[in-house]
Amino acid sequence: MATREEERRTRAGALLAEEKLDALLVTNLHNVRYLTGFTGSNAHLLLLRDGSAQLLTDPRYDVQARQQANCKVEIVKGSLFRATARSINKARVRRVGFEAANLSWASWKAMDDALPDRATLRDTDGLVEGMRTVKDAAELDLIRSSCATNCRALDLALRNFQAGMTEQELAAEIDYRSRQEGASGPAFDTIVAGGAHSALPHAQPRPRAIEPGILLIDMGAFQANYASDMTRTVHAGPPPARFRRMYGAVLEAQLAGLNAVSDGATTRSVDRATRRVLKNHGLDGYFTHSTGHGLGLEIHERPRIARSDKGKLSAGMVITIEPGIYIEGWGGIRIEDTVVVTSKGCEILTPASKKLRTLRS
Amino acid sequence: MATREEERRTRAGALLAEEKLDALLVTNLHNVRYLTGFTGSNAHLLLLRDGSAQLLTDPRYDVQARQQANCKVEIVKGSLFRATARSINKARVRRVGFEAANLSWASWKAMDDALPDRATLRDTDGLVEGMRTVKDAAELDLIRSSCATNCRALDLALRNFQAGMTEQELAAEIDYRSRQEGASGPAFDTIVAGGAHSALPHAQPRPRAIEPGILLIDMGAFQANYASDMTRTVHAGPPPARFRRMYGAVLEAQLAGLNAVSDGATTRSVDRATRRVLKNHGLDGYFTHSTGHGLGLEIHERPRIARSDKGKLSAGMVITIEPGIYIEGWGGIRIEDTVVVTSKGCEILTPASKKLRTLRS
Repeated sequence: MATREEERRTRAGALLAEEKLDALLVTNLHNVRYLTGFTGSNAHLLLLRDGSAQLLTDPRYDVQARQQANCKVEIVKGSLFRATARSINKARVRRVGFEAANLSWASWKAMDDALPDRATLRDTDGLVEGMRTVKDAAELDLIRSSCATNCRALDLALRNFQAGMTEQELAAEIDYRSRQEGASGPAFDTIVAGGAHSALPHAQPRPRAIEPGILLIDMGAFQANYASDMTRTVHAGPPPARFRRMYGAVLEAQLAGLNAVSDGATTRSVDRATRRVLKNHGLDGYFTHSTGHGLGLEIHERPRIARSDKGKLSAGMVITIEPGIYIEGWGGIRIEDTVVVTSKGCEILTPASKKLRTLRS
Repeated sequence: MATREEERRTRAGALLAEEKLDALLVTNLHNVRYLTGFTGSNAHLLLLRDGSAQLLTDPRYDVQARQQANCKVEIVKGSLFRATARSINKARVRRVGFEAANLSWASWKAMDDALPDRATLRDTDGLVEGMRTVKDAAELDLIRSSCATNCRALDLALRNFQAGMTEQELAAEIDYRSRQEGASGPAFDTIVAGGAHSALPHAQPRPRAIEPGILLIDMGAFQANYASDMTRTVHAGPPPARFRRMYGAVLEAQLAGLNAVSDGATTRSVDRATRRVLKNHGLDGYFTHSTGHGLGLEIHERPRIARSDKGKLSAGMVITIEPGIYIEGWGGIRIEDTVVVTSKGCEILTPASKKLRTLRS
C-alpha cells in the first residue's frame, strides 16, 4: 500500500505533467516534509513526473534522512547544487521546475550554473503549496490536537495569572504549559501585550508588569509538526465601557467572518464580512491587516483571507478568522479562531471561550 | 551624537562606494535590525552611499517601525517592491545592490520588473554580514548575558532532572528556565537526545523516558535579540568505560580547538586542530560536521569554522567550538562552547563545567 507521502508524490507528479515540466526541484522544506516525511533543515528533493523522488541532504542528516524519508536518499558531502545537477543529468530530464518563492537568487544562480546543458530551470509558484491547502483526515486530527493543546495552555496560564506578572513571564508560562500539554514548541513568538502596547499587532512581550487594562494574547502551538493559532483579548481588572463596546464590535466582526466561511465561498467575501461589521461601528480604519490565513505545516500558508485575494475556500482547508482593531495610544483588540472549512460552513477548532474575560488585577 | 545604528549605516554606505554601488536593498531582516533597530518580520531597507536610509514595511508595523527605526520610515499598503522602486527612482540611483542569498528568485523578479529604467540590480554577497562578524562592546555584553542565561538554565534544569522524565519534558524544562532567567526564547529547537538517538546531530526530543546512558543537550538562548549556543553531553547513571574514553577524546578535541583560536588564525586551522585530535583517537570518521560557526543576531552566521573555509579570525568575533562524534546504534557526544576571539586567544562565554557529569537515573 502506498504511504501517505507516496500518494502525495504521485499527485504532485501528475501536476508536473500538467505544467509541462519533467521534474520539480523542491526547496521549500515544508514541501519536502509533506512529500517525504524528512524534517531536517537542509535538503533538495528532486521529484519526477511518475512520482519517484530523490532526497539530497548533508552528512549531519545521514541517519535521520534514512529513518524518516521513504524515498531514495543521497547524502552529499560537497555542494548540494552540483549533486542535484548530477541527478538531473542521470534522470535525463529537460524542463526542471523550481520553487521561485523558496529559492534565493544566489541558490538559483548556483543551480543554474551547475545544470547540465540539456536542462533548463523554469520558475513555478505554489504547486505543492496548493496541494497542502486541503488537509486530509490525518492532518486534521493533528491540527485538532495542536489547537486543543493551545486552548488548554491558555486556560492553565490564565488560571496561574497573578497581579505583578510581567508580559514576558506570562508568555513564558503559556509556552511552558503548551509544552507540558504536548506541543514541541510555540508556532510563533507568543504575543502578550498589555495596555497601549496591544496597539502593535505583532507586539513583543516586555519585561514589564501587566497593569489593569487590555491584555491581548496571540498564541499557537506546534505539535507533531502542525500549527495552531488563536488570539484572545481579555481585560485585567474591570473593563470600562469603551473597551466593552469595542470588544463587542470586534467579536461581532469575528462571528460574521466565521458565518461567511463555507465550501465555495470566495476568500474576499469572508474578508468583506468582517470589515463590513467594523465599518458599521466606524472602526474599519483601525483594522490594518487581512482577516486570516491558512495554516498547517506552517503557521502562515495558503489561502490568504484578504481583500485583494482571488481565491475560493474548499472543504478541508484550515484557516484563521482574526479581525482586530489597533488604536495608537489606547490599545488593540483581536479575536482569532482556527477553523476547518466544511461543506456547510466551518468547524471551530479553538473552542476557548470568547466571552469577555476579566482577570483579577 | 550618532546612534550605533547610524554609525553602522555610515560604515555600510562606505562599503557601497567600494563596491561601485549607489544603493543597497537590504532584505535580510537581521541586517535590517542591525542597521536600524527594527525587529518586524517584513521590511525593505534602501541604504544609500551617504548612510541615509529608508525603511519600508506594511501597516501592521505602523507604530512599531516608527518607535524602533531611527531612519526614514514608509508604511506601504500595496506592493513593497513597487514602493521600493519608487524610492529608487526618487533617489536617482543607478546601480542597486541586492542581497542575493536573502532575496528569493520570485522577489528578485518582482523587484526587477518594478525597477525604473535607469536602475539595475547587482547581486551582492555578505556586505552587511561581514560587518556583523566583529561585535562591538555593547553586542558582546548582550551575547555574554545570553550565554550566562543559557548556563544557568542548564544547571537549573539538570538539578530538577528526575528519573522517568522524557526528552521532551527535559527540553521544556530547559526552555522554561531559560525564559525565567531572562531569555525571550530558545535560539533554536533545544536538543535533548538520549541513548542511540544522540547519534543524530540534530535530534528532536522524543516523548520517551530518558534511560540510563548518554544524554546530549544542545541549547541556546535568545536574549535581547542575541543568541548563545552550548552543548553538553552527560551520562544518566554510571558511565561505562567506552563512554568515558570517547568523552575524553571529544573533550581533548574541543580544548585543542579552543587553543587554536586567536586573532589572525585561519578558520581552517581551528577546524584542523579538533579534527587532528579525533584522528589520533581513530574517531575522525565519526565527526561529520564542521567545528563551529559565528553567532550574534542569528544563531548561525559568519564565519564558518570548517575544513574548506578560507577565512581568518579577528578579535571581537564570536564563534562556537563544537566537535562531536556520532556512531549509529551507539550514540553521540558533542561538547560546545561559545567564545569571543581575543588578541591572545579566546574567552569562553559559556563557563558551564565540562567535567563528565553523571545524573542519577
